[in-house]
Amino acid sequence: MNFLSMPKPELERVYQELLERYRHFQGQHLDLNMARGKPSKAQLKLSEKMLDLVNSSSTLDSENGEDCRNYGVPLGLAEMRRLMAGMMEVPAENVIIGGNASLNMMFDTVACGMTHGFSGCAPWLEQKNRKFLCPSPGYDRHFGVTEYFGFDLITIPMTENGPDMDAVEQWVKDPSVKGIWCVPKYQNPTGITFSDDTVRRFAALKPAAKDFRIFWDNAYCVHDLTETPEHLLSLWSECAREENQNLAFFFASTSKITFPGAGIAAMAAGNDDFAELKKRYSYQTIGPDKLNQLRHVRFLKDMDGIHAQMARHRAILAPKFTAVLQKLESELSGKSVASWTKPKGGYFISVDVMEGCAKRVVELCGGAGVKLTGAGATFPYGKDPKDRNIRVAPSFPPVEELKQAMDLFCICIQLAAAEKLLKS
Amino acid sequence: MNFLSMPKPELERVYQELLERYRHFQGQHLDLNMARGKPSKAQLKLSEKMLDLVNSSSTLDSENGEDCRNYGVPLGLAEMRRLMAGMMEVPAENVIIGGNASLNMMFDTVACGMTHGFSGCAPWLEQKNRKFLCPSPGYDRHFGVTEYFGFDLITIPMTENGPDMDAVEQWVKDPSVKGIWCVPKYQNPTGITFSDDTVRRFAALKPAAKDFRIFWDNAYCVHDLTETPEHLLSLWSECAREENQNLAFFFASTSKITFPGAGIAAMAAGNDDFAELKKRYSYQTIGPDKLNQLRHVRFLKDMDGIHAQMARHRAILAPKFTAVLQKLESELSGKSVASWTKPKGGYFISVDVMEGCAKRVVELCGGAGVKLTGAGATFPYGKDPKDRNIRVAPSFPPVEELKQAMDLFCICIQLAAAEKLLKS
Repeated sequence: MNFLSMPKPELERVYQELLERYRHFQGQHLDLNMARGKPSKAQLKLSEKMLDLVNSSSTLDSENGEDCRNYGVPLGLAEMRRLMAGMMEVPAENVIIGGNASLNMMFDTVACGMTHGFSGCAPWLEQKNRKFLCPSPGYDRHFGVTEYFGFDLITIPMTENGPDMDAVEQWVKDPSVKGIWCVPKYQNPTGITFSDDTVRRFAALKPAAKDFRIFWDNAYCVHDLTETPEHLLSLWSECAREENQNLAFFFASTSKITFPGAGIAAMAAGNDDFAELKKRYSYQTIGPDKLNQLRHVRFLKDMDGIHAQMARHRAILAPKFTAVLQKLESELSGKSVASWTKPKGGYFISVDVMEGCAKRVVELCGGAGVKLTGAGATFPYGKDPKDRNIRVAPSFPPVEELKQAMDLFCICIQLAAAEKLLKS
Repeated sequence: MNFLSMPKPELERVYQELLERYRHFQGQHLDLNMARGKPSKAQLKLSEKMLDLVNSSSTLDSENGEDCRNYGVPLGLAEMRRLMAGMMEVPAENVIIGGNASLNMMFDTVACGMTHGFSGCAPWLEQKNRKFLCPSPGYDRHFGVTEYFGFDLITIPMTENGPDMDAVEQWVKDPSVKGIWCVPKYQNPTGITFSDDTVRRFAALKPAAKDFRIFWDNAYCVHDLTETPEHLLSLWSECAREENQNLAFFFASTSKITFPGAGIAAMAAGNDDFAELKKRYSYQTIGPDKLNQLRHVRFLKDMDGIHAQMARHRAILAPKFTAVLQKLESELSGKSVASWTKPKGGYFISVDVMEGCAKRVVELCGGAGVKLTGAGATFPYGKDPKDRNIRVAPSFPPVEELKQAMDLFCICIQLAAAEKLLKS
């Protein structure tokens, strides 16, 4: 039942059947959300005991004897820096602990470039026609930060090995190109992990702009969905080998390890950039929340603790991904109306529907009570040039609701395809 | 025993006596700190029970049913905004809740002006020779933020009614003047509360720069040291009366109500500026720590709760201020070597020593194990033109240590004065 080879009368009949099923869904008044990569209630419950580990009877001092209730320690507790360093595979002395949002640290780092510049270059605000590379489909909030700061956003195609490195190497010859957004492991939304070759080519970049930076947001570094995790080469080590140590900023957080609404963010930078950012933070803040750091260190303890926690997340998340993939397979396979990724980690499944149909699919789903990420959101300026990509976030709804939502989603994909084909 | 009228031989004798006492102190190997406005361990203990109010058995939803563990609510919980609004005397709908440092919100607000501007004006970075008014003595970290962002810092003298408003009104005629730092109640370090007339004159300002802003850091709004609090007129209400609603940014935090290392910061702005900042925050963050907000709201409850908590702080703090003032009085009164403030709130006592002696006093104290705020810190660029002002922070050491430190401090003030007079 390939839509492309179906005679029009049959397609018309299929369309009517789909429409009937769609209307049936409308009658159910669903209210489901597959829009954002939000952990579910069951996942949040996994970290609740953390809240009990810092209380009025417990020690409130750090391992270095700092009173975590009081001012001080602007770069974060030594034990917290060490823990995040292990996760990010960078030296602890290059780590800065932030508040609860790594996005905030990325924003602040771009803001630092805007007003103070990097590597002694002029502030970005004074450099006209500045550009930022955006591997797409990618993370809308990344693109949003550089859009807010007035960069021209350049779409770099995503391949199965990561961003198209030929395109990246070509673009960095332009001195007005100041950086690139990357989610190197289980990328948002494709689920792809950058290949060793991709990481090596990143580390070996010789950009025309001395103030070009890779924003390496390793948001899903330990967020495996299988027991055979994909391996990401360490960009830090590769940059060291290339003596290119100030080429990248590294970001991570515990948002999807403990609590998105009360986690710990961290970043790392090469020595020169670290000094610049350390100076900035000395003016910007009296230091991040140290009691929350204490909570996290006591709860997660070390890399073994993090992996054990992630295994518990996996037990909840993996069946949801399986449910989504099974629905896509059983409802859409062989119909030439969509293709999709089968990620081994992260929070998303990326679905490419028939060209020119993504907006319509999202609209149809919304009309029957299922909210999806806005079509186009995964591209710069929210504009998918082929109107094709939809990011599915299976984490939040319970499995049963997810299956319902996916039934509707698959109907809408076919409806939009049939509409298009019938019009042509 | 007025130093100024003392014959030289007698002064020489006094100097030798003081020197002997100073050396005796040196032999004691003290290690005391009166440098920063840090709450003491006893004060921190007052909020420890707060840590027990959010735990694995408690509800973790906000009053609006938001799951505080998860993403969302970027401006802060409604109940937290209401609580801070009450403290700041502004409408809750104009409040934004931040992380744990109001300094960070001030920094971000200046950063917003730098890259995006206010009231439709060009970004501050593009405006050359931009200036910021710094009532002095004042708060070194305020001055530091605007120094970091390349403003020329203009010293405005502090009077007993607040900043010299004649000078302020004169300066704001210059369109390159973009703002002023204010700690309007129990000012850091003078302890002065701005008079009604001062607040009214601020609200009525008609600056040449449309993007001029008052940074109204009400850090000590509920931090009374007596049972008869000084009253600060509401700048928000006065601005409303003058239809000058986007003239000021308002800041406060619970740093010295609960925990400096894990409190809640907040700011407020007039409607246009609020919209600009709300937009910025929508790019900058996925929202501040909501579980910590929950903790604070459950612990402090309402303004009555805040006042009750502050009465407990006062019981610890007031005797320390009394001890410092008694020492100054008993050791220095009538000697013409120093004058000092007698604040009814806040965290500091401001001591003016003999002109040209402040650096020397801090140096002498340091040489005998008592750390003071660096001389000059209370002035732009850390340079006190008369080298006279020293900020004393009595909050951290226990009373007995404080008395010891003050004995030394008073000796050092006299030593420096005698040195100066003997050389002249």
